[in-house]
Amino acid sequence: MSTSTRTEGTGNSAYGRKPFKRSKSHFADRITADGRDGWPVEAGRYRLVVSRACPWASRALVSRRLLGLEESLSLAVTDPIQDDRSWRFTLDPGGRDPVLGIRFLSEAYDARERDYPGGVSVPAIVDVPSGRLVTNDFQQITLDLATEWTALHRTGAPDLYPEPLREEIDEVMAGIYQDVNNGVYRAGFATTQQAYEDAFVALFRRLDEVSRRLADRRYLVGDSITEADIRLFTTLVRFDAVYHGHFKCNRAKLAEDPVLWAYARDLYQTPGFGDTVDFDHIKRHYYQVHTGINPSGIVALGPDPQSWLTPHHREELGGRPFGDGTAPGPVPPAEQVPAAVRP
Amino acid sequence: MSTSTRTEGTGNSAYGRKPFKRSKSHFADRITADGRDGWPVEAGRYRLVVSRACPWASRALVSRRLLGLEESLSLAVTDPIQDDRSWRFTLDPGGRDPVLGIRFLSEAYDARERDYPGGVSVPAIVDVPSGRLVTNDFQQITLDLATEWTALHRTGAPDLYPEPLREEIDEVMAGIYQDVNNGVYRAGFATTQQAYEDAFVALFRRLDEVSRRLADRRYLVGDSITEADIRLFTTLVRFDAVYHGHFKCNRAKLAEDPVLWAYARDLYQTPGFGDTVDFDHIKRHYYQVHTGINPSGIVALGPDPQSWLTPHHREELGGRPFGDGTAPGPVPPAEQVPAAVRP
Repeated sequence: MSTSTRTEGTGNSAYGRKPFKRSKSHFADRITADGRDGWPVEAGRYRLVVSRACPWASRALVSRRLLGLEESLSLAVTDPIQDDRSWRFTLDPGGRDPVLGIRFLSEAYDARERDYPGGVSVPAIVDVPSGRLVTNDFQQITLDLATEWTALHRTGAPDLYPEPLREEIDEVMAGIYQDVNNGVYRAGFATTQQAYEDAFVALFRRLDEVSRRLADRRYLVGDSITEADIRLFTTLVRFDAVYHGHFKCNRAKLAEDPVLWAYARDLYQTPGFGDTVDFDHIKRHYYQVHTGINPSGIVALGPDPQSWLTPHHREELGGRPFGDGTAPGPVPPAEQVPAAVRP
Repeated sequence: MSTSTRTEGTGNSAYGRKPFKRSKSHFADRITADGRDGWPVEAGRYRLVVSRACPWASRALVSRRLLGLEESLSLAVTDPIQDDRSWRFTLDPGGRDPVLGIRFLSEAYDARERDYPGGVSVPAIVDVPSGRLVTNDFQQITLDLATEWTALHRTGAPDLYPEPLREEIDEVMAGIYQDVNNGVYRAGFATTQQAYEDAFVALFRRLDEVSRRLADRRYLVGDSITEADIRLFTTLVRFDAVYHGHFKCNRAKLAEDPVLWAYARDLYQTPGFGDTVDFDHIKRHYYQVHTGINPSGIVALGPDPQSWLTPHHREELGGRPFGDGTAPGPVPPAEQVPAAVRP
């Protein structure tokens, strides 16, 4: 998740004298079909709060699209730039989320736990009637969308976490989480040369392994899109835009690895993936919020995101993107990304 | 030239609230065949002081090699990291240049002009008998090596600034200086988004123009290496190592432009070019000295410089690298770059 604490400034809590360590989600209630944590799946009851800048929150954006949950689970998009009160709804009229009526995501945290001292992170799911945060458990949210929200899935929704493949999916995701999803942050926020180099080496070792795996198979596990692909995608789509330069993950650009670059473009061009991506939010967030590593706040102009639309030829590997299901429909007009890179 | 003033810290004088502006060289005496400025060309009399990190100083390193001036004009190499007294001879035993006997290049400046308040820059040429700085005029030094030091050139030295081509060379160099050599600094040290974007756009517009020019001709002007190629080379060889990420010149890597990448590798693999390049000095200097844009001082690990040795196929364009001359011999053992990327 993308965290910032209200006392430590604009998103730089991760950047200090100590080695970078991602904090665990504090609010781990689950929204389930049986409602055993007190939060039953229910259409229209919850609001998903994301930043389009954040790779962890963007997983939920993709899952929600693929599963057709747009009407059941409404969406709040924060400003990509946090202030000292963290994520805020300054993109909305009057600077308030029109459904929750709050100006800062922290208000939903406070409604859940008075004087909660920890970080405020996205993705977050808020209970609309009470205005209380339900969960900010970024590792669990998408799994529950896939497996607990099934009654509200669209017709033709894919199975993103198929029972027989879960063990393999979990194993693949664990390595990618450690070295790639979180690895880019360990490199970028390292405060010693050694910590940076360790993260850099592990990152590219893992990317090499993943690249070999994907050379002759279209998706990470099985022959359809799964949760594992979603989680790898949200890091890869940010790679050349921010991680390569800003986080010094520069052994090579994603675009220099023919397999991973084609894989990432294949997903980008699949409905539900690229249509959630806002390169403007991504770039402004990383370059402007992390003043500890980019004091000028200047946002790098390159590279040209139009390259995400070039042919990838991954269809030749076969695979069935949505398994027995179908592609999601178009993005609801209210949720279209203004700066989206479109064919 | 690479400047730092003794009062403004370690090389960050360029990074402040004002738009980046390269200062003019203050000491513009010329060493000439006729000695009209009081400094006649003379074997063994002068010492060239460089940082191998610095693109401006590296021009002189290349010219000196191509012209075979190693024995006539001795070489002092500074530490790539300046301290608050600027360029220093900490790589030498006892931290002193063995010929000049000084610890800081600034001592030669002081010997020339008491209490000189300006920046201390490389390249610099020092008169060994008096210990006084003669010139730090980075734009003139290499032209004089090519045209005034001819009596001391090796047999087979190329003509790097041929009379009939000077007008064209000057014109090509002027555009490259403004938008490329100095343009990367204007981008990297910009303090406003607009100044950065202006520099970025001009840089890549010029590189595109140069790339078109070089698509069907091996060198920039005429069919042999000239001063113009030397000046473009010392920027291009740093592009992917430091300018692309650290200076945010990231529309694309040099390695993504097939023409410029092949051109740069062709020169790199030509005796006198790549054998002067020290990627370790380059990377440590930029990433560790510019704390204003990289506060952590962490040095990015990528990309792998071995790619400079890959085949370029530019021989197919014809051209005669050294004109009527020949390639220079091997690097004198004392001047070999420890971390050089060698075949």
